[in-house]
Order: sequence, then structure tokens, then C-alpha cells
Amino acid sequence: MSEKYTKMWEALGLDISAHDGLLKVLGQFYGDIYLSQDKRLKGMEYMDFVLSEVHGLRIQELQEAKAAGRKIVGTFCVFVPEELVWAANGICVGLCAGAEIGKESAEKILPRNTCALIKSFVGFKLSKLCPYIESCDLVVGETTCDGKKKAYEIFEEYVPLHVMELPQMKRDVDRDLFKGEVLRFKGKIEEITGQEITASRLKEAIRLINNRRRVLQRLNKLRAASPSPISGRDALLINQISFYDDPPRFTKNIEALCDELEKRVAAGEGIVQKGVPRLMMSGCPMAVPNWKLPFVVESSGAVIVGEESCIGTRNTRDLVDEGGQSVDEMIDAIVDRYMRIDCACFTPNPERLDHIVDMAKELKADGVIHYALQFCHPYTVEAYKVEKALEKANIPLLKIETDYSMEDVEQLKTRVEAFVEQVKQ
Amino acid sequence: MSEKYTKMWEALGLDISAHDGLLKVLGQFYGDIYLSQDKRLKGMEYMDFVLSEVHGLRIQELQEAKAAGRKIVGTFCVFVPEELVWAANGICVGLCAGAEIGKESAEKILPRNTCALIKSFVGFKLSKLCPYIESCDLVVGETTCDGKKKAYEIFEEYVPLHVMELPQMKRDVDRDLFKGEVLRFKGKIEEITGQEITASRLKEAIRLINNRRRVLQRLNKLRAASPSPISGRDALLINQISFYDDPPRFTKNIEALCDELEKRVAAGEGIVQKGVPRLMMSGCPMAVPNWKLPFVVESSGAVIVGEESCIGTRNTRDLVDEGGQSVDEMIDAIVDRYMRIDCACFTPNPERLDHIVDMAKELKADGVIHYALQFCHPYTVEAYKVEKALEKANIPLLKIETDYSMEDVEQLKTRVEAFVEQVKQ
Repeated sequence: MSEKYTKMWEALGLDISAHDGLLKVLGQFYGDIYLSQDKRLKGMEYMDFVLSEVHGLRIQELQEAKAAGRKIVGTFCVFVPEELVWAANGICVGLCAGAEIGKESAEKILPRNTCALIKSFVGFKLSKLCPYIESCDLVVGETTCDGKKKAYEIFEEYVPLHVMELPQMKRDVDRDLFKGEVLRFKGKIEEITGQEITASRLKEAIRLINNRRRVLQRLNKLRAASPSPISGRDALLINQISFYDDPPRFTKNIEALCDELEKRVAAGEGIVQKGVPRLMMSGCPMAVPNWKLPFVVESSGAVIVGEESCIGTRNTRDLVDEGGQSVDEMIDAIVDRYMRIDCACFTPNPERLDHIVDMAKELKADGVIHYALQFCHPYTVEAYKVEKALEKANIPLLKIETDYSMEDVEQLKTRVEAFVEQVKQ
Repeated sequence: MSEKYTKMWEALGLDISAHDGLLKVLGQFYGDIYLSQDKRLKGMEYMDFVLSEVHGLRIQELQEAKAAGRKIVGTFCVFVPEELVWAANGICVGLCAGAEIGKESAEKILPRNTCALIKSFVGFKLSKLCPYIESCDLVVGETTCDGKKKAYEIFEEYVPLHVMELPQMKRDVDRDLFKGEVLRFKGKIEEITGQEITASRLKEAIRLINNRRRVLQRLNKLRAASPSPISGRDALLINQISFYDDPPRFTKNIEALCDELEKRVAAGEGIVQKGVPRLMMSGCPMAVPNWKLPFVVESSGAVIVGEESCIGTRNTRDLVDEGGQSVDEMIDAIVDRYMRIDCACFTPNPERLDHIVDMAKELKADGVIHYALQFCHPYTVEAYKVEKALEKANIPLLKIETDYSMEDVEQLKTRVEAFVEQVKQ
């Protein structure tokens, strides 16, 4: 897609030569990990297309929207209530990044012991490699973890930033704090878009995003079938793309894919043979193109049947109640929905343990792989509680801590293969 | 002190043999680092005594107080308003630990990539080595950082725990949240002590703790003299002991020591020659017996003149306003005072940058050493802002990231010696 979009990328200030290199590596990586799969679904052609145009067509759409007066809002966290962005005729895109490129630049301003996700989004900005960040009229941070909270203070020197404070507990006072932050965010969005968020527009936006969540819930449920009708890699990709694709188009395409999955399930067909070990991933988000561990797992004789993650069920489990009529009622519904998110940033966070066990049972997972980014304290520490909860439920667990480098692939393979053998017994 | 207190330690459930080993190492370490100093102040004899009885006499006092019905409350953070503990006739002790012992036990329940301070207090508990923790009727945690916040969830299985939620910003809503937490803590303290916190008792407690802060402010000011009248090691030790000694006794002894310092200053005498490079420490707290870096610095031809740290000026800079008459007014004064703490857990935290620069100027520091515990995201990330602020003020900076092990001592020496040479020029 290079030549076609070069002018646009230049206008966005990208480092064209480094960016060409990135796209080349990405294309090859995608070919190896995705296009090499057998029995791929017809519906995945849309994903292949979207991914092949990840920095092309979608960016062009954003630029066209900007030219038409719409504002682009970038986020790093599922706590940012994107309904408010869409209700103000804005476009919301996820900015989390999953590649090591830019790490050296990031380490000039951040400690080496920072998690790969943070170093990646900072690195993409500093290295001028992310057309999404460059398209943003506003970037939204939040105080979910120490690393992001403090990194945003530096990142603010590079992007127009709004930081939301998240509470750390889930009591009434915490809900009040968060509601205040949602209202402040609403004010900010209205300010930058110049659009008042009316009841009818908010109602529409709530339905829009709920519909996207509903189709992803449908997809997740279909993965409970044995054999699984879709690979974990493909399901992860779908979840990743949900963060930046146009919501109605995305929803429509995933509905079609789910229709195809239903037929497969009805025919007893799957992406793998029946009896292949079924594993569930749990933990930190995997942003594009962080496909390392899923690829290792699915190359080790197992299939991934679920992602208990922000790029997974943590972002799709709960809907915003659609019964609200006034803006106030809908804001309350939004606050209630987002306060149900079971991120490890909360203390305590027992809901997550229940969700993991329930999900593993529903998906008939033979085991769980707890995936944590190195230096992510919330998830690496909470892994202890996850381990205890799964032990009690008699579900095998493998704890993985890694980053975006490829250096540990062989080591991961060895550990995952041993785990697959273990759950087979 | 071993034999005299063995029965008490046994009653507290300590691992006597491991504990004997700990005291032996501590005594030797103390001899090498403290007793070896020249021109030591007469007033430091009290500190030597207190430290030599760190697990002896002070614990015996706590046990006697418990027998008389008083409650012991342990804390890990300067955000816990200890005035409330003393007002309810309780005794407050700091539980932060600065030794590597117990690390292996801690790493069974915490990730290896957890900061040394957290691993240390967890390790001391799991290894049955801390008579302070074993004496506590209540242990108070707080949500200052991800590591502690999540570690407390596990630590709760081992100690009676109360966790305070701290806000992450400093706006009115955040103050409200913190005030709610202070009131909740007051309720908890009243519950466990069975004592109502009355206005007259709270007034007395505020004065008690303010007096301790005042004498430490006096000590800090005297260190602006050139040559410095006291070593940084000794000043750090005084700050460390302030967290567990009896406040009136401590204050009286430090007043006497300050009288001695004043005479030294008036006579133009110091712990070092005039012209010896003056360095200020800034960053993470150094809990007993974490004297590694101060020893390295003061063995490298420099003297430490200040500690911008929780075990340092962050805990002594601000007093609680003493003008309040009702409990309500005093609670507000407490909330205002604690919300001024410039911990890196806040975002943003510009006050700390101002404090560092002002303090370095007041103390005539030739340079600043930013000390961060490895894996402490708040301080390691904020170090970037500290660097920029000091650059602007033309004050040299050395950034150190370390833990409690002795493995990097030679490497630290090399870096510190080079820095000392740099600031001399």
C-alpha cells in the first residue's frame, strides 16, 4: 500500500523510510502468522483486508472525516467511555501498540523497566511511525497503572492530552469520583468537537457501541463449540481491529463471520480436530501486532478459545443499559457499565477471578495461560490470586511474563509445549 | 541483646535462629557503616543505643503498652495520618524494611520484578523476622503504588489489614475522597482501640507529631552550614528512627543533638572539611538498614546534606495547622497537610520538582543523586522530570536505580566517585 498513501503519510509527518520498513515487516509477520493457517474462514478476508490497510485506507477515512470537521480521539484503555466521542460525532481509535519498534527512542525518556505496551506507544510517537496518533485531535490517558500515569506526564509534551483519573476501589465514593471524570470528559469532548451531546445522539452512540459488543459476545459464545470453529489468533485479530475500525461496518462483517461460524459449528467442523487441547488466555491486553504468544500456543498443538483481556472479554462482557432517556440517566448507565470492568488496577478485584473461572468452564478450556507484560505490577501480582482461584477450580495454569521481543520465542515454545502435554493428560 | 529478649521473641513467634543471624549481621553492618565514623556527635549515642535495641527494648515497650491495653498500629507510608492513632492512645510504628533477608520467601508470592521495599516487608513477615509486625493490632496499607496496592491483597492473608485509598490527583474531588478515607481510618482506629478521638486528645496528638517534625526541620536547617555538622548517614538514621521511637523521647533527644550541632556550626566545625562536595539525595525512601548508597556516597569523598524522601523532608516539611478547635476542624487541617505531600504517586506532581530545586539551593548542594528502587515506576519515571528541572537550575544530577543487594556496590562506587569528581569542577 506504500506508494498510494505516501503523500498522506508525509503530510502526517511520518518517517517514511522507517515506516516503509515497519509495513514490510508487518506484512511478512502477518503472512507467517495469519495467512499460513488452514481452513480459514471466508469472513476473515475482511480482516485480512482491514489489516493490510491498517495504515492506509483507515487513515485516509480518518483524514476525510477530519476534513469534514469530525474530530479524532485516541485512547489507550477500555475505561475511556467512547460512547461520548461517537455521540459528539467524533471518531474513537485505540492507540495501544504491540511492536518493539521505537523502543530505543522510548527508553530515552522512560525507564528500561517500563512495560512493552507503554514503551511501544511512546516509541511509535517519538519515531514518527503511527499515523493514528498523528491523526488525533485529542489523546486520552487514564491513571490505571503507575507506568501509564507517570508516562503521560512526559507524553503530554508530544500530544494534546486529557487524563482521566480512575478510582482504585469500587465503593460509592469511587463511583462518584469516576462519574465526575466521565462528566469532565464529556465536557472536554463537547469542547473539542463543538457538538453538544444530546440525549438522542448519546442513545444512538450507546446502541452503536453495544452492537459492536454484542457481536463480539456472539463470536465468543460460538468458541465454546468443540472443536473450536475459529483460531485464537483470528479471534484476537478481530478484537484488535474492533478498536479502530468503523463500528457499523465492523459489526456487519462480524455478524456475517458469525453466521459462517454457526454453520461450521452445526456441521461439527472446526479449525482444529476434536480433542486438540483448548486453552484460554488471561491477563494483559495484546495490541496489534503482538501475536507472538498466540502463535506460539497454536503452533504447539493447542487452540485458544478465549481472551480474558482488555482486548477480549473485558471490553465486551458488559453492555451499557439502553433504558435511559435523559443524558443524566445515560451517563449513570455508562458509569455503572464502566465501573464493572474487572481490571487489575482495582483493589481488591475478586470479580476477575470469578470471571476467569466461569469463562474457562463455559469455553471448556483445558487450561489457562496467564499472560502478563513484564513490569506490569497489577497483572503480575494479581497472577498469584488467579493461580489460587484456578487451583481451587482444578484448572491447570501456566504463567507467562514476556515483552514484545522475539528473543524468548524458543523458551516460550518449550514451556507452552510442556503445558499442552500436561493438560492433555 | 539476644538472650535477654529470647522469650519475648518466642512469644511473638519469631524464627529465633534466623532472627539471631539477622541481628548479628545488622550489628556488624552498623559497626562498619556507623561506628567507624570520625568526629561523631555525642548526641548520636542515643541513636546507637536505640538501634542496638531495635528489636529489644522498643519491642518490650510495645509489649508492655499492649499489656496495659494500648493498641499498636503499623504503617508503610507517610500518608497514614498517625495523629489519629496517637489521639486514640495507640502507638504508631513504621514497618518499611530495608534488608534483603526474606526475599526468597517473598518471591514465592510476589513477582521477582517487585521493588525491594515491598519484597522486604513481605519477606520479614513470611520469614518471621519482624517483631514490629508481630506486635501490630492493625497494619495499614494504602494505594500509593501498584506494587503495594496489589501486594496488600495477598498480605491480608497474613496480617489484620486496613487499606486506605489515596487519590491520584490533587483537585477538590480528590481531597474529598481522601477526607473520606481519613474519616474511615478514624473510625477504624476508634473501633480497635475502643477510644473516642476527642478534640482535646487530637489537639495533643497533632502537637506531639508536629513537635517531632519541628525538631527534624531544625536538624535539616542546620545541615545547610558549611562544612556540614553531621553526616548524611547519621541524619538518615535519625529520620529512620523517628518512625518507631517514642515521639516525646525522640524529640527531646534530637533537640539536645541539635544544640550540639549548633555549637559545632558556630565554631565552624563539621563532620568533614570545608570544600568537601555536598550532595543531596532525592527519591525513594531508605528504610532501616538500607544504608548502602549513603555509605557509598560518603566513602567517595562527599557528604550528604539532605534527603528529599519519605524518610526525610517529605515526612517533615509540612506541619498540621494547630489552630483547629473542633475535631472537624482538625480533621480538615490533617487532610490539608497530608494532601500537600509531594509523592510521585500523584499526577502531575510539579511541587516535588520545585521542592528538590529549592532544597538543593538552600542546602548549598553541589549535586543531587536521584535514588530509585528498581521497578518503582512512580519514581523511576518521574526521574525524567527531575532531570529536566535540575538541568534548568544548573544543578548536576546522578540517577541511581538499585535494590537491597550488595552485588552492585562496586559499580555504584565507580559511578558515585565519577559524579563526585564532576561536581568538584
